[in-house]
Amino acid sequence: MNIIKGGVTAAKGYKASGTEAGIKYKDRKDMALVYSEKPAVVAGTFTTNVVKASPVLWDMKLVRSGKPVRAVVLNSGIANACTGSVGDEYNLWMAEKMASALGIDTEEVCTASTGVIGMQLKKEPIERGCKQLAETLADTAEAGTLAAEAIMTTDTVSKQYAVDFEIDGKTITIGGMSKGSGMIHPNMATMLCVITTDVLISKDALQKALSLSVADSFNMISVDRDTSTNDTVLVLANGEAGNDEICEGSAGYVEFCEALDQVTRSLAKMMAADGEGASKLLEVTVTGAAAKESARALAKSVITSNLVKTAVYGSDANWGRIMCALGYSGEDFDPYKTAVTIKSVTGSLVLVRDGMATDYSEDEATKILSDSEVTVICDMGEGDACATAWGCDLTYDYVKINGDYRS
Amino acid sequence: MNIIKGGVTAAKGYKASGTEAGIKYKDRKDMALVYSEKPAVVAGTFTTNVVKASPVLWDMKLVRSGKPVRAVVLNSGIANACTGSVGDEYNLWMAEKMASALGIDTEEVCTASTGVIGMQLKKEPIERGCKQLAETLADTAEAGTLAAEAIMTTDTVSKQYAVDFEIDGKTITIGGMSKGSGMIHPNMATMLCVITTDVLISKDALQKALSLSVADSFNMISVDRDTSTNDTVLVLANGEAGNDEICEGSAGYVEFCEALDQVTRSLAKMMAADGEGASKLLEVTVTGAAAKESARALAKSVITSNLVKTAVYGSDANWGRIMCALGYSGEDFDPYKTAVTIKSVTGSLVLVRDGMATDYSEDEATKILSDSEVTVICDMGEGDACATAWGCDLTYDYVKINGDYRS
Repeated sequence: MNIIKGGVTAAKGYKASGTEAGIKYKDRKDMALVYSEKPAVVAGTFTTNVVKASPVLWDMKLVRSGKPVRAVVLNSGIANACTGSVGDEYNLWMAEKMASALGIDTEEVCTASTGVIGMQLKKEPIERGCKQLAETLADTAEAGTLAAEAIMTTDTVSKQYAVDFEIDGKTITIGGMSKGSGMIHPNMATMLCVITTDVLISKDALQKALSLSVADSFNMISVDRDTSTNDTVLVLANGEAGNDEICEGSAGYVEFCEALDQVTRSLAKMMAADGEGASKLLEVTVTGAAAKESARALAKSVITSNLVKTAVYGSDANWGRIMCALGYSGEDFDPYKTAVTIKSVTGSLVLVRDGMATDYSEDEATKILSDSEVTVICDMGEGDACATAWGCDLTYDYVKINGDYRS
Repeated sequence: MNIIKGGVTAAKGYKASGTEAGIKYKDRKDMALVYSEKPAVVAGTFTTNVVKASPVLWDMKLVRSGKPVRAVVLNSGIANACTGSVGDEYNLWMAEKMASALGIDTEEVCTASTGVIGMQLKKEPIERGCKQLAETLADTAEAGTLAAEAIMTTDTVSKQYAVDFEIDGKTITIGGMSKGSGMIHPNMATMLCVITTDVLISKDALQKALSLSVADSFNMISVDRDTSTNDTVLVLANGEAGNDEICEGSAGYVEFCEALDQVTRSLAKMMAADGEGASKLLEVTVTGAAAKESARALAKSVITSNLVKTAVYGSDANWGRIMCALGYSGEDFDPYKTAVTIKSVTGSLVLVRDGMATDYSEDEATKILSDSEVTVICDMGEGDACATAWGCDLTYDYVKINGDYRS
């Protein structure tokens, strides 16, 4: 598997564009389009929030229908959530205008929105944006970047990632883009992600691969524990690579899953590192847990603790807060079997052994925690299962950004 | 029922003291004692964290034993959690030294600790503290205040509350003290609370009343969702009021429960208002929920949302975050039946009706949210159940306090 440049336009047969439509702000890219020249099999995972935005409801319907799609149109600025039947109409309007500008069916257009909840979209900027998006479509890496930039909200950098690999002598490419730096929490966050691949794969196999992949990537990141109304991950597969169709268990399925995992994990880590106000990427790996689900719950509990997040911000090896967060995870374990190690490029240090402090040097610990990427490893001594979660520190800037997000 | 001055020394037959023992810091009160002249029935509720501090394990054993107790000795500065069998020894040492200074049995002394996790206590300051506490015991309101001050950590004010009421012509008094302003989360937080009453009541009735009372008070406050290793609520009842013994369902039981609720809720609200870095007390009331448990879960979900807490800090009527938090509570409801109202001394304003924005004035909303006590009322339109949770805003100071707590 090779990491390659690009995002949603990396795979064969895909184009993209991004434009300034004036959805909410002026002079800011706020609409994006991903387009497949051939009808593409689509799989999706969506927010678990009871309050679901109109585009989420629309995409869930399209994905369930089992029919191929050709395009995903996305906007930033307004989330189109808590907008009632009027919101549903605007969402349909967006799909219709995009379809007509592309000369395809409305049911071939997935939609996604991100931004402020409760505000209605306006028809005029959407119509203008859809036209501009269709006119400026291109299959270049630059076009992919424009799309990735157009879906940003409080993100400080755009997020793209792509890999290629071979199955039976055919090169398969998977590329994706994502956004999301606030309202990010396990079980999907205010995050949008579109992944495109030229692999030929059955719809069932694609959905299975995506659902598994999301469980260990997007569902393992947390910025603030707030699970949004709009989370959407879509994968389009158009079969242009010319491989024999992949089904669950067939040749190539494992390789595809591994490559997809590489893309989703990389995008997830980029999102965590760009968490609102983040100054550090925090990785929490739980090893030696009794079961996989237990390992995930323990890792998530530590990554989401405000007290752990502020301690990491302050480069303070306050391991008691880590033990405490493991303890209220809902999982049962013997605390006196637990070991906690911190790690960064500076080195690694065992803080806790058998549930109690080692004779570590606070100075050394502070040095390790002062790096911009910090890993905490919790070994539970209970079994063989492990899991990794990603998040970030909690800083003054998080409070600043979110105390004044709408203005 | 009357609200009266005082705390743990308000009820008949109780004394208290607070002293500087030098547990972790100098020139700071850090040990407290509550003492009952007669053996008292004791009930308790404790942290649900798997990682339980040594004093928690000790008290659980005493409460389970069913025997009466005479004293509670508490220290701040060191939590005596994650300290292994050595920690258990130090805890027993604290109970023994206190018992010998008071001339009572070790098994008559409950213990409680709060502070940094993972550090061992030292014997010398404990022994000195126990002596000083025994020597300075008094039944005055001032002595109660000294005790309440000695258990503070990052608290900015001490917390005491007391009421009296009559049962069959006998005056019953209930008074309490508590501490805790970080690691505070539903299901008990880094909070210690000791309540004393002179009522004559059976142990079973006292435990039942306390467990019910905690569910709607201490378990409904949240500062940072971190459930601590040390949470302890103890109620001592010494029977000095001279009433006929109260049992579950007997005359006076309901009155006692109401008075106890008044004390626990008042202390809980004080703790929420004094949350680390808090500039505002936030109250979230859910009405019209399908069931009581559902109402509690919905209210807790809103009170714990970092995005809601930062919006309240910024006096921003970002109701989408409230809807979002209701939506990921795990409870099912129809968002298009939901109404959201904000309220403070300045006035009240309906922001959301039928799940969508009303035509409210942002200026008016900002004015209401600028007060130091803000209430959010979420009516779910699903049934008759309601619940209230208390918390605070998330501020720069929270980050400051917790990025640098240990130094």
